[in-house]
Order: sequence, then C-alpha cells, then structure tokens
Amino acid sequence: MPFESVLIEGCFRPSLAPVGTYRAVSPVTGEPFGGEFPVSSFDEVDLAVRAGARAAAQLRELPPDIRADFLEIFAGLIERSAADLVDIAHRETGLPKEPRLLKVELPRTTAQLRMAAEAARERTWCRTTIDTKANIRSMFEPLGGPVLVFGPNNFPFAFNALSGGDFAAALAAGNPILAKAHPLHPGTSRLLAEAASEAVSRSGLPAAAVQMVYHFEDDAGLRLVAHPLVAASAFTGSRPAGLRLKEAADRAGKPIYVEMSSVNPVVILPGALEERPEAIARGLFESCTLGAGQFCTKPGLVILVKGPGADTFVESAASLFREVNPSVLVGRKVLETLARSVEELLGHGAELIAKGKPQDGPGFLFAPALLYVSGGAFLRSPLNMQTEAFGPVSFLVTAENLDELRAVVSGLEGSLTGSIYSRSGDEDETAYREVEPLLKQKVGRLLNDRMPTGVAVSPAMNHGGPYPATGHPGFTAVGIPASLLRFAALRCYDGVRPHRLPPELQNRNPNGRMWRLIDGEWTRRDL
Amino acid sequence: MPFESVLIEGCFRPSLAPVGTYRAVSPVTGEPFGGEFPVSSFDEVDLAVRAGARAAAQLRELPPDIRADFLEIFAGLIERSAADLVDIAHRETGLPKEPRLLKVELPRTTAQLRMAAEAARERTWCRTTIDTKANIRSMFEPLGGPVLVFGPNNFPFAFNALSGGDFAAALAAGNPILAKAHPLHPGTSRLLAEAASEAVSRSGLPAAAVQMVYHFEDDAGLRLVAHPLVAASAFTGSRPAGLRLKEAADRAGKPIYVEMSSVNPVVILPGALEERPEAIARGLFESCTLGAGQFCTKPGLVILVKGPGADTFVESAASLFREVNPSVLVGRKVLETLARSVEELLGHGAELIAKGKPQDGPGFLFAPALLYVSGGAFLRSPLNMQTEAFGPVSFLVTAENLDELRAVVSGLEGSLTGSIYSRSGDEDETAYREVEPLLKQKVGRLLNDRMPTGVAVSPAMNHGGPYPATGHPGFTAVGIPASLLRFAALRCYDGVRPHRLPPELQNRNPNGRMWRLIDGEWTRRDL
Repeated sequence: MPFESVLIEGCFRPSLAPVGTYRAVSPVTGEPFGGEFPVSSFDEVDLAVRAGARAAAQLRELPPDIRADFLEIFAGLIERSAADLVDIAHRETGLPKEPRLLKVELPRTTAQLRMAAEAARERTWCRTTIDTKANIRSMFEPLGGPVLVFGPNNFPFAFNALSGGDFAAALAAGNPILAKAHPLHPGTSRLLAEAASEAVSRSGLPAAAVQMVYHFEDDAGLRLVAHPLVAASAFTGSRPAGLRLKEAADRAGKPIYVEMSSVNPVVILPGALEERPEAIARGLFESCTLGAGQFCTKPGLVILVKGPGADTFVESAASLFREVNPSVLVGRKVLETLARSVEELLGHGAELIAKGKPQDGPGFLFAPALLYVSGGAFLRSPLNMQTEAFGPVSFLVTAENLDELRAVVSGLEGSLTGSIYSRSGDEDETAYREVEPLLKQKVGRLLNDRMPTGVAVSPAMNHGGPYPATGHPGFTAVGIPASLLRFAALRCYDGVRPHRLPPELQNRNPNGRMWRLIDGEWTRRDL
Repeated sequence: MPFESVLIEGCFRPSLAPVGTYRAVSPVTGEPFGGEFPVSSFDEVDLAVRAGARAAAQLRELPPDIRADFLEIFAGLIERSAADLVDIAHRETGLPKEPRLLKVELPRTTAQLRMAAEAARERTWCRTTIDTKANIRSMFEPLGGPVLVFGPNNFPFAFNALSGGDFAAALAAGNPILAKAHPLHPGTSRLLAEAASEAVSRSGLPAAAVQMVYHFEDDAGLRLVAHPLVAASAFTGSRPAGLRLKEAADRAGKPIYVEMSSVNPVVILPGALEERPEAIARGLFESCTLGAGQFCTKPGLVILVKGPGADTFVESAASLFREVNPSVLVGRKVLETLARSVEELLGHGAELIAKGKPQDGPGFLFAPALLYVSGGAFLRSPLNMQTEAFGPVSFLVTAENLDELRAVVSGLEGSLTGSIYSRSGDEDETAYREVEPLLKQKVGRLLNDRMPTGVAVSPAMNHGGPYPATGHPGFTAVGIPASLLRFAALRCYDGVRPHRLPPELQNRNPNGRMWRLIDGEWTRRDL
C-alpha cells in the first residue's frame, strides 16, 4: 500500500525511507481509517530544510505583495474546500462540524490568513525607525531561513502548522515554512497542503516556501530545532515536549517560541459570588466544556473565598457538570494524559465533586469533571496542584479568606490568561486592587468578568505569558502584526547609500500606507 | 582592614561573610592599589534579590516620572563627580582621561541616562495598542522583579552595570536593578553607586531599586540568573561566560540578553581598494586601535580580493601598525586572553604581517598586530579563523576573487556589525549586490564605507545581531527606546473595566505626548 506523499520543494512525493507509518484514528470509534501516513526520517526533513534555506534567499528578492497574494489565494482555496476540510477534520478530531469547524474555526483561519496578508502588504509590522540626522535606519526583516512550525492537536485549522497562527505570522514576515503536521489530523493537513501548494504556484512564491511532513520522531525534532539552517521554531503542545525542544534550540542559539501549558486562573471575588453565582457557574461550565475543554485558555483553576455565595456557585457548577454527556477527545493520548492528570490531582488531595454522566463507548470519551481543594491544601503543594488537566476539567480552590486567596494567587505559575470576576458596583474594588497586582504578574492577558476561552485575533491581543506558559514574556502567538515579530531580525543600516536601502527605509514611503517612526514621530509621510 | 561596602537595600554596608576579596590593579604598573573589595556570597546577593523583588512591587505603584527623575538626577550627579570618576576610572582601566573618559564616555553615559529618562516620561516605548471595537488593550510593562546586570570590562561608565546602557534601559522600563560591577573597575563602580544612591533618595525611588555588589563567583552567577525572583539578566562579556550564563537562565525559563563576541567583518570591494587604499587602511588602523581595540565593534576581520589595490592597502595598514606604540589593556586577563587568541590564530595558519613597536613595561602592554591569511586557508577552517582577538588586532583575509570572497562571507558566524566599502561611483554595484545579501544575514548593523566602532545612541541603532554575537536577533542593547523592550512583558487587558486600566491604556492619553496604536493608527490623541 503506497504511503501518502509529503510536500517537499513544491512536489508531493513519496516519503524517502520513512522510519514508520501511521493512520488517522476516529475519536468516535477508536478505529484507524484512511491512508498510511509516513513518519519522515531526519534525512528527509533535512532535505526540506536545505530547500527551505534556498527559498529564503529567493524570498528576499521578492516584494512582500507576493506573500500577501499567496496568503489570500490560500484563504480562498481553503474556503473552496471547506466542505471536504470540515468533513475530514471532523472524522479525525471528533470536533463538531457545526458550529465549531465550519462556522467558527475555518472562518477564523481564513480571516487570520487575510490579516497576515494585509500586514505583509501594509508593512507597519517592520517597525521601521529612521534617524535622519545620524542617517541610521532600522527595521525588522525575515530571519533568513525556514521556520519550523509544530502544530498542536486541538485546532486542526486555526493552529495547524500549515494554516494556523504561527504559519501565517512566519510566512507574512517573509520566512519559508517547514510544517510538521500533527499526527492526529494528517488527512486534514494533507488537504491543506494541497491548497497551499496550489496557492504557492499561483502566487509565484518559491516552490520550497511552504513544505510539510506529517510526522517525525522526537529525536529528529530535537536535531531540527538546532539545525544550522533552521532560522527559528514555533511549538504549541505539552510542557514536557516543549521543554525538551526549547533546551535543544536554546543550546544551539536558535530562537524558539513554545506555548506549553496554562491553568488560566479565574478569581471570583466575594461580591461577584454573592451577586451572580449561578451565572458565573454557567460561564465556567460552558467555557470549560467548549471544544471538550481542549483549549490552551480553558479555565482550569477557579479561586474563590468561602461563604454562602461560594456554596451556591459550587452547587450550581456541580449540577451542570453532573448533567453533561461525556466529551469526545481528539486522541487516545489526550484521553490518557487527562485521566492521569486527574488521578495525580486526586492523589495530591483534590476531591472530585462532580462528574458528567458515565457512558461506555468505543471512542475517546471522557466525563467532564469538577475537582475541589481547600486553599490550605493548595498552599501545601502549590506546584502539584497546578498540574494541567487538558480537557473538560476544572479545579476549584476555596480559600478561607482574601488573605489566603492572595497567597494562592502568589503561588501560581505563569499562565496565558487570568480572569477576575467582581460585583457590578464597586463593592469588590478594594479586593480587586489587592489581587490584581499579584495576578497580573502571572499572566499574559487579564480579563474582567469573563472566561478566557475567546482569543480574538486582534492587534491588541496577547496570547502569551510568563514562563512556563511560554518561553518569553514579550511575544504573542495571536494578534497581527505583533505575532510576526517572533520571526524577524532587527537590522540596521548605518550610513548605507540611499539606493541600496530596502524600500521600507528609503525616503519615499513604499506604499503610502506604512507607518514609520521618523525622528520620534510615527508617520505615513515620505521623508 | 575593612572592606569596601556593598549597596544593598539603600544602604552601603559591609559585605556579609564575603567569599573573598580583591583590589583594583593599575594597568600601567600592574600593581594593586586602593581598598579591598569583597566578593559577595550567594547568600548576600540572594538578600539583595529579595529586596529587589519587594522594590519591584513598590515601583509598580509609582508613576514613571519618578524613574525619569532618578535618571536625570543621577546624570547630574555623575557630571558633578566627573573629575573624581575620570580619575579613578583612568587609574583602574588605563584608558586615557582625555578625550576618551572625560569628553567621550562620560557625556555619552549621561546623555544615555537622560534619553532613558525621556523615554520613561514619554512612554511611547510601551507600544500601547488599543482595539476599541473588541475593547482589548495591551502594552509592555515592567517584568515584575529585579534585573541582574553584568557589566563588561571595557567601558567603566557607558556600559557599567550601574550606569550604562543595560542599567538605563532596565530601570527606565520600571525594573529594579541589581548590578554586578566589573572587578576591573571597582572604585569607579563604588563612586557611581554613591551617586546612584543619592539619586534614589532624592527622586523617591524605593531604596532597593538600585543595588550593587562588586563581584561574586561564577557559580553564584549561574544560580542568580536562574533565581526564581530574578526577572531577567543582561550580560556583556566573553563568549564562554555568556554561554554558561545563557544555559543556566534558559533552563530556568528566565530571559537573558547576552552580548558575547563579534569579529565585525569589513568587506572592501575591488573598486574601493583601487580608489582609496590608504584612506581605508588608516580608517582600519584607527578603528582597530581606538580604546586599545577593546570595543565589541572593533573591526576584527577584513575581507578583500587580491590585486594591486589590495597590496597598497595591506602595505599602508602594515606600516601604520608597525609605527604604533603598545596599547595598555584594561586588565591582565584581557592581555592573556588576547595573547592566547593571537597564538591560536597563528597556530591555525594565520601569518603576522605587522606588529607595533615592542616596549617592555610593568603594565598590561600589548603591541597592536595585523594578521593575514589567504581566502583558501580561511575556508579550510572558518570557525577557527573567527577566534575573537579582543584588543588592537585585526585579521586580513585575501580572497583570490569575488567568488572566494563570497564563500568567506558565507562562512561567517553572527556579528554585531558588517561593513562594506565600495568605490564612490557605481563600479562596485554589481559586487555589492552579490555580497550584501550574504553579509546582511550575518550581522545586526550594516555599514557603508565606514568602520563600525561608532555606536550612536540613536532610536534607529541596532547593537545586537545573530547568534553568537547575541542570544536573540530581535533585540538591541543600544538605542532608546527599543532597548527597553528587553526588560518588559507584554500584557493585555481584555474587557477590563475602564478605571482599572493602567493610565497608558485609558481613553485619555496620560501625557498628551505618548504615541499609541489605536485601531491601526499611531496617534497622540485621546480616545
């Protein structure tokens, strides 16, 4: 039986001496289906890296509009193939076709590709800075080699290594992409690769500007992030894998952006608990079970203070969790890791206070669960209590009082998000002012009165945060144009003859739309 | 004999149980002089880190104008003590009082502190981004803990851990500073610490916002960059030390900015060699011997193509090097490392073509030297040939032709700067277009027709570059406000109630001067 082809240097071709094969598995039946996908050898990916390095040199000679054209054509082709994409993604991940895949994730993906296209055309992302007196001019430019993107398991389109946020950002910034598809949705990745390949041809991008392999072994990954010709890597996934890749890349002096884990603390202040315990409980339940809880920003830890409001909140939340049907998780490993994480939390002293309806089935079913621990018990082993349970599980921590709540917040590791619920009026203001400075230090995005699962693709978004949520607190993975800066190098031109400057640094604004910082003033004017 | 006091939590106090002591050494006589300075134990620095963490929380509550006041008062106090500072810095480093210390480095230092003050006041550095429709607002904020700054040996003022570029940037961004003075100029650092301490009191900064120890052992440094309460570190120095610190910080998930080594390639194209060989040779000689060659941007590698112009250039440069008196280096270790680096280069096949006048003396004297190798020999061991010789040494590589020159450039490691000299007219344009894309990938700053030692403190400057020149190609250590971003975290406020937003994110522009990116437009207007 022939294997599915990898996309290398513009061609779909059979994998050379794959080190293994695998098939997609239906999360509903637990059964494999479809074709055999190759696990590429290091040598095969090395060929792609070399081709990507040549493509980087070619890309330097092309105007950014070509990248923008590619991104827009690609978005259009994804829409053209929407029905097929949604069908295969549903079969591979178990995520609902509607609204999730068709109405939410696919439009988010194409919108993001088009925003990246606009950023590439408009060019403000380059942060051009011109000092006319000293004749020194600087801007962010492509890194000069392929960017290796590792896609996660939870978003087959919007974070796919071949169509998601990292892909769009790194390509818009002018870098060739070498995508490692996630093994849980190889067929989806294959369809996306076909669309990308067509868009490469139609836009005139170098053939090796977009390449994809389905899978490679962990050791190959460690070698690849440190590869002399790889410019940078982006990884979204588990903490153990992220830390290993980060260590390998760091040692080689290669930038790597890792998004690894996050419990996304939600603090509910006493006034809010008293005012609207049921509404907040419903918000938690919905946010926690959305997409079977498989979001990096799922509210995994809820911190509140004992009292009648807290009791009502806990009862409301528990009853919602008890009534819900089991969730289908995207893969067997996700199920196993989640079950193990919950066992670990229980082993450390957490109590199970509610669990969804049991249901036996052949697929990757998991009954959503609500866990509980006292503030005192949390504080006795705060790190163990922050074990991420990736899936439809949330963990309530009830503090004796606000001081204990603050101690719990002070013991948090870095997360992507942190929410604070407070009463509509100003009764919680004092408590807010005591908690906010502590929580803010631990998170990349602070929310008020809202659960964190919505991650708007806004220029003001930060989908990042302090370690170990990510590897560096200054970068965001969502939000264009800021996300492009992860894949760019600052370059300065000091006394360079005018005609040799890149167009963005010449006196004339290259498109009349780009914002440039000229002698301390942000302007779109020519110089 | 009592030891000199360390500056911890606002007080000059005797070091607690120092693990050793040392004295300054005159580079001119090689003899120690002045007081005994303590080598602090890890425990002592740990106390300072804890005090710094408390100061970080206090700083959050203070408006940025306090930091600006501090920086300006500090600059004024440095000027008031200029005569004493120049005197002790001269005695400790052997660098000339005039023009270097008094007329160049000290004014550069105070100007930099004042620019950082203006950046803190003006606040555009925060890169405030507001999406009014989604009500998502983000900005860069202080990291939330002390920044550990390791000063280098070569600039007792302008890169001093207690007054230099990293200090000014990290403090202006709102972080407490824990400075590790360089052991080669402890008395200078002591005087700067006195001025800083007075400025802390007068401005109203928290007492532990600026702390200093003179020295600690390497192991303590490795623990400190990974300390849970240290927010980030900045190091300028040798590659081996930088790599060890980087590894320790990376493992702990702590940002570290390392500036490690750079040969700063200078490419001289055939037309320029033909047109003005003597002038370029003089430029090289002056740039290479300025400050006894102890600049991170010293032109260490000169690449040219064989021919009559090259012969004249080499002869001119050689005759200048032969006539020069020995340089006084800042320390014995600098002398020993430089001598060893030159031996290594000679061992790898470089030839010594010129050497300054010999002179015996008790101090750290080194005769400037010009080395040579053919392009072919360079290409046989390109990494060995890029051994940094920190001091007044340059290394000429003569290629057979332009193809070989391009091969040499392709084999370069990352550097801070790269220069290309070409003929005044357009005779060298074709060659330039062939060489520039290769060189640009290897450097942070590209110069035309100029040596790289001038590093203007301009908003458009990039004093950074690809690994191993630094640890990340997206950051600069010189150039305000960009250098502040190294010491800041991106924070997002999503649906946060208006009165709880930081002033920079509220509808009203807090000072009417700050630039903010509001719905895609850079503006100073209120919202």
